[in-house]
Amino acid sequence: MRLNDAVTVIQPLDETAMVAARERQTRLTKPAGSLGALEGLAVRLAGLAGHCPPPIPKRPAVAVFAGDHGVHAQAVTPWPQEVTAQMVANFLAGGAVVNAFARQVGAAVTVVDVGVASPILATPVRGGETVGRGGELWARKVRAGTRDLAVEPALTPAEALAAVEVGISVAQDLVVEGYDILVTGDMGIANTTPAAALIAAFTGADPADVTGRGTGVDDATLAHKTSVIAAALDLHRPDVHDPIGVLAAVGGLEHAAIAGFILGGAALRVPVVLDGVIACSSALVAAAMAPYAVGAMVAGHRSAEPGASVALSHLGLAPLVDLGLRLGEGTGAVLALPIVACAVRVLHDVATFDSAGVAKK
Amino acid sequence: MRLNDAVTVIQPLDETAMVAARERQTRLTKPAGSLGALEGLAVRLAGLAGHCPPPIPKRPAVAVFAGDHGVHAQAVTPWPQEVTAQMVANFLAGGAVVNAFARQVGAAVTVVDVGVASPILATPVRGGETVGRGGELWARKVRAGTRDLAVEPALTPAEALAAVEVGISVAQDLVVEGYDILVTGDMGIANTTPAAALIAAFTGADPADVTGRGTGVDDATLAHKTSVIAAALDLHRPDVHDPIGVLAAVGGLEHAAIAGFILGGAALRVPVVLDGVIACSSALVAAAMAPYAVGAMVAGHRSAEPGASVALSHLGLAPLVDLGLRLGEGTGAVLALPIVACAVRVLHDVATFDSAGVAKK
Repeated sequence: MRLNDAVTVIQPLDETAMVAARERQTRLTKPAGSLGALEGLAVRLAGLAGHCPPPIPKRPAVAVFAGDHGVHAQAVTPWPQEVTAQMVANFLAGGAVVNAFARQVGAAVTVVDVGVASPILATPVRGGETVGRGGELWARKVRAGTRDLAVEPALTPAEALAAVEVGISVAQDLVVEGYDILVTGDMGIANTTPAAALIAAFTGADPADVTGRGTGVDDATLAHKTSVIAAALDLHRPDVHDPIGVLAAVGGLEHAAIAGFILGGAALRVPVVLDGVIACSSALVAAAMAPYAVGAMVAGHRSAEPGASVALSHLGLAPLVDLGLRLGEGTGAVLALPIVACAVRVLHDVATFDSAGVAKK
Repeated sequence: MRLNDAVTVIQPLDETAMVAARERQTRLTKPAGSLGALEGLAVRLAGLAGHCPPPIPKRPAVAVFAGDHGVHAQAVTPWPQEVTAQMVANFLAGGAVVNAFARQVGAAVTVVDVGVASPILATPVRGGETVGRGGELWARKVRAGTRDLAVEPALTPAEALAAVEVGISVAQDLVVEGYDILVTGDMGIANTTPAAALIAAFTGADPADVTGRGTGVDDATLAHKTSVIAAALDLHRPDVHDPIGVLAAVGGLEHAAIAGFILGGAALRVPVVLDGVIACSSALVAAAMAPYAVGAMVAGHRSAEPGASVALSHLGLAPLVDLGLRLGEGTGAVLALPIVACAVRVLHDVATFDSAGVAKK
């Protein structure tokens, strides 16, 4: 599916299904509203599926999009760039936190090389069992890292579009394989810098309000990182009416691919659980391209990165998990998967007051 | 195990195991601190187990303690008292929200009748498969509902002690059966009234600050409920140095049993995941009896009932899930179970920087 096709296909949530889900919530054996945010979540997922009850998600797939960043040259992080490729190898071996979480909740892990700069010490494979051990590598590199957004556009528009379409195709391939809920993951040393730039561009927020410590930089590096982002926005003056142009100017390859991944999920009416600040920045791109894509988004967690909360507010999404995580990889979103499944299962399994013979107040 | 034995057995968390867990967190392939609250949780569970890594919880058991309340006569809730027994039958048939959630995450549901006033239209059973369908009923009734705490003590001290010891024995029986993480559940029309009274008594908070809408009462009923609680505290003047006396004066049978259940888990060094405001009030009772019992407590979620947050602050516990639930039954705590397992699994599965060949900053 090309970007234009995906954008055309993405439609609003189905009001009839949502009305049916809201009505069903009132008949189940629980006080009205007593499941808090889970009730509205189940209603939205009915709207996405187009019927009530919507399917209980049973086969989650995490796609970890990996890429490198030219802006690493500006010393926005103390971690060497090679760590991106090293962590990709760690995902493939099953040794990262996202693997541990995915194993616990029964999710598959797919690692998509959309732009890693260093050699990955692992053989790309495609197919085969992925749950219970490491992830599998999908080789979809658009280029070996972005250019330095502090001095020139990070990508050409054609490269940005290609990365978005990688994301769409990954979503499509996973859904064809039978996965029924998608989880965004990311890996890319320095990638909170383009994420903050994207969030500032799309929300109009001050760079100082959306730039965070990423992996844990000190005060001086945080101030420097913020000034790099502010200067890049001044240099490129990205136009939010041209989302591909914004991605090209100050984005990243994994940011672009995740935007496409969200659009692919939305086009196929499959929920996409957003992880942290990288996913939130990508979600703004996706929403700028196709506003109804927000209907497919589930905010998995609130990252400790300040930009994530700014982006979620802009999108009108409330996170399911809020535990101070700031790791990326998809970890926060994977924690939310059982909550999403529980919210939907209520509409399937819970007895009504009438059927259970329980009196109402 | 009698109460005195449990209190004697409960010891502090093991510092050596916690030091080992903290040190291990620093060597795993993730930025220091990037798992937020999950890191400290895993450290505490290592301290509870007495070794690092602690076991990954694999067999969760929810015990739903059910009881009725004489204070129902004061019109603190619009729901008929018979709903307690009707919901017990619903739990046994597998039709309540806690059953749906437990099915999703693979937890067993046990329903303990510690004080239901109306006949339960189901046959008490003991033993047999419980995961995947409804719960099983354990008949441990101490008395058919409490007395009206607005006019007399709800229980005699002997009854309160008996209910506490029911909870201890339920914890013990479940652990002997191989369950390795316990979840508190409750059912009892009007039971947020004694919960608020217990929380006010143990924390010193004003009744107005800890009394909530329960199943969703209107402003007038909330004001009346608050005044009933304030008047009962004035009438009985419970002494927090006599926790059994406090339970007897203004508590409930399920509140007492859950306090015992927590103490039983703590004595056996098994984590106990607290649900909402009923569990939080019981946790205050348990902590008053055995302060080190707090080490076994995991705050599953933040109930929308204001008293829950006051109690958790008093105990120094931060909740894992915060989604506005106010249903009870154990529902909020069950949502937290996969998060607890993920937190512990990190200490087992995640590679170290050295073993994975990942550079540090």
